Amino acid sequence: MKASIITIGDEILIGQIIDTNSNYLANYLDKLGFEIVEMLSISDSEEAIKEAMNRQLNRVDVVVITGGLGPTKDDLTKQVFCDFFDDVLVENETVFAHVKALIEDYFKRPISELNRKQALVPSKATVLFNALGTAPGMMLKRDQTYFISLPGVPFEMKGIVEKELTPLLKERFTLRFNVHKTIVVYGIGESLLAEYLSEWEDNLPATVQLAYLPSRGRVRLRLSSTGTDKLAIEQLLNEQIEAIPSLVKENIRAYDDLSRSDVVIEKLKAEGLTIACAESCTGGRLAVLFSEKEGASAFFKGGMVTYATTSKIDVLGVKKETIETHSVVSEQVACEMAEQARQKFQSDIAVATTGNAGPSKGDSAAAVGTVYVGIASEKGTYAVKYELGQPREQVIERTISRALELVYKEILKK
Amino acid sequence: MKASIITIGDEILIGQIIDTNSNYLANYLDKLGFEIVEMLSISDSEEAIKEAMNRQLNRVDVVVITGGLGPTKDDLTKQVFCDFFDDVLVENETVFAHVKALIEDYFKRPISELNRKQALVPSKATVLFNALGTAPGMMLKRDQTYFISLPGVPFEMKGIVEKELTPLLKERFTLRFNVHKTIVVYGIGESLLAEYLSEWEDNLPATVQLAYLPSRGRVRLRLSSTGTDKLAIEQLLNEQIEAIPSLVKENIRAYDDLSRSDVVIEKLKAEGLTIACAESCTGGRLAVLFSEKEGASAFFKGGMVTYATTSKIDVLGVKKETIETHSVVSEQVACEMAEQARQKFQSDIAVATTGNAGPSKGDSAAAVGTVYVGIASEKGTYAVKYELGQPREQVIERTISRALELVYKEILKK
Repeated sequence: MKASIITIGDEILIGQIIDTNSNYLANYLDKLGFEIVEMLSISDSEEAIKEAMNRQLNRVDVVVITGGLGPTKDDLTKQVFCDFFDDVLVENETVFAHVKALIEDYFKRPISELNRKQALVPSKATVLFNALGTAPGMMLKRDQTYFISLPGVPFEMKGIVEKELTPLLKERFTLRFNVHKTIVVYGIGESLLAEYLSEWEDNLPATVQLAYLPSRGRVRLRLSSTGTDKLAIEQLLNEQIEAIPSLVKENIRAYDDLSRSDVVIEKLKAEGLTIACAESCTGGRLAVLFSEKEGASAFFKGGMVTYATTSKIDVLGVKKETIETHSVVSEQVACEMAEQARQKFQSDIAVATTGNAGPSKGDSAAAVGTVYVGIASEKGTYAVKYELGQPREQVIERTISRALELVYKEILKK
Repeated sequence: MKASIITIGDEILIGQIIDTNSNYLANYLDKLGFEIVEMLSISDSEEAIKEAMNRQLNRVDVVVITGGLGPTKDDLTKQVFCDFFDDVLVENETVFAHVKALIEDYFKRPISELNRKQALVPSKATVLFNALGTAPGMMLKRDQTYFISLPGVPFEMKGIVEKELTPLLKERFTLRFNVHKTIVVYGIGESLLAEYLSEWEDNLPATVQLAYLPSRGRVRLRLSSTGTDKLAIEQLLNEQIEAIPSLVKENIRAYDDLSRSDVVIEKLKAEGLTIACAESCTGGRLAVLFSEKEGASAFFKGGMVTYATTSKIDVLGVKKETIETHSVVSEQVACEMAEQARQKFQSDIAVATTGNAGPSKGDSAAAVGTVYVGIASEKGTYAVKYELGQPREQVIERTISRALELVYKEILKK
């Protein structure tokens, strides 16, 4: 079954916001078993909405449209729906009661004309109840295509998709399973990887699609297949993907889009080790990565963000003379930061970052882009120097990658 | 001048990655003065690419296409370009020399057939040099429409846009100025806000477009206009937007899409105040917000992420009996955390977070979703309790918002 996604909103076309709704819907519809043939972002204009709906008519089975619904005057979708389906707006009692309750009981004010208009829906529409807001979703069919319109506010849209839309789609369609398996290969370019895999790729079963997704420092390989027997497809993809480690000489780090930090955390947990961090130029990002998932307290003892030089001395306990002798961006300071963090937080491993992320020089004479990452564990203490260029954001990102790689190596030493 | 954006890649259609390239291009082309009429994401298939190109032909002046270029076998764009422009691929000497140098000098290996193919471009194309990678961009014209194809790897694509594409577009088009002004109103719903602004909205000049962008807890209002006299448009929009504060009774917090943390940081800098933080459930995110922009050392002294209870006692200096008496998620602990952070980092204001983000209960008896935010300054110390529900990610996000709001209030007390 085919699906397409339309998002309405000038805020997307001028680049003011990133269209995360389409990504959510694509992921969700793919998991349900639809083949998404295109995603289209268009302007808040009657003409653009009509043209986009005509484009999808009989091209796909389901079109999910977000945005263009809400109480204010820039909302046009309902009128376009009436024209497109030759329908009229009528007040829906359930929606009206819900809007009234929400406004009067929750916001403690009388319901307005604008609010009342929210309860108007095309008479032929199946209403998709919006428990979390005032604008309802709706579904109408023309010829072979279902058109579904949802509000653009992400949490309202998701609520309707999961509670209201999913059962309706499952009822109407017999869907297949889309299965994807991803393997991430670090430290090797796309073309070299493709050479290593050339013969393997030529022998892939015809039902399996392969895609290369290169990004800085890594290539993700995705295998995809579709069918009615989910277990059989998973087995087929796993067999293919398991052949890869013996074909590439580089280190394979992760399956299924696990991030570097996921891999490090899994390894820490598997080995029963704890970690702490002392951060300067990374400003708390390592702590965020270690703490954001549930169950972090099992391995993450804590961290310090000693941004000011005085904090490195007074709070973290780096020796003043070390900083005076070697400067705040130095191997020695990175080592002391790691050692102090390990001792203060009583962790098995500690990682520290100190560097000059730029764009201008900070408290140190070090060049912009120079970073030291320090590691302390019972195996000893050391620091590595990196020259990470510019801009600032890149220096911070790369420092995080290098720090996670060093932590990973330290765990493997055990 | 009209533009459209096409991204090629199944990874977008299955929701594996968020299409940030389109957002970057939309923002960039809007700033250059183009009107972006649509953004389209399509599959890695010859048929889909051809159909999308035909759709844009003579519909817009410029189409920017990303993805579908690269050394591996799933790349089809160049072949489709040859068909579409009735052209053939030829080896480009400059590109070949660059690819050769990159592979041989940087990667230290002999150039392969796959690499060599990267230097093939349609004979009629204007080549857009890719200094940061092997796949070049290219530009061809058919009828009234320029088609530009760029590699999908974001940093390579951006490099080509900024260095190579921009001068070519400026040379070929006389562009107008698109100006946008945004005001963010917190704590008021879209429909009530629309009522307050109803008369003002009816009197907006015809050349000014208004859009409401609601999200959780705030509404962004955007005014947009286009023309040849940038200063005059800016003045017009500013006049309109300046009327808003007197029309809404709620607190206006930010102009031009400034985030809450931007507003707080500007206020800290304006008042010459310094800040520190002690974080438990927010795991370092406040520190990241305070430290991520250049010049952070002027106001951000540092932070502690005391995730484990023992770290709160041993490292931050919260009294053991306070935790034992009141539990780790309590008003008293939030206050002590803030006080200890303020004292240790010697800051004017300190903010602390302790809570149970869920989904399961942690070291405390507090309900899932219960959070305390503590504030310490020379005006005194206090903490506020919040019940922030679930899921975990929402609790963390909301805690950040509440913490920034309390810091803002504390600065205003001065």
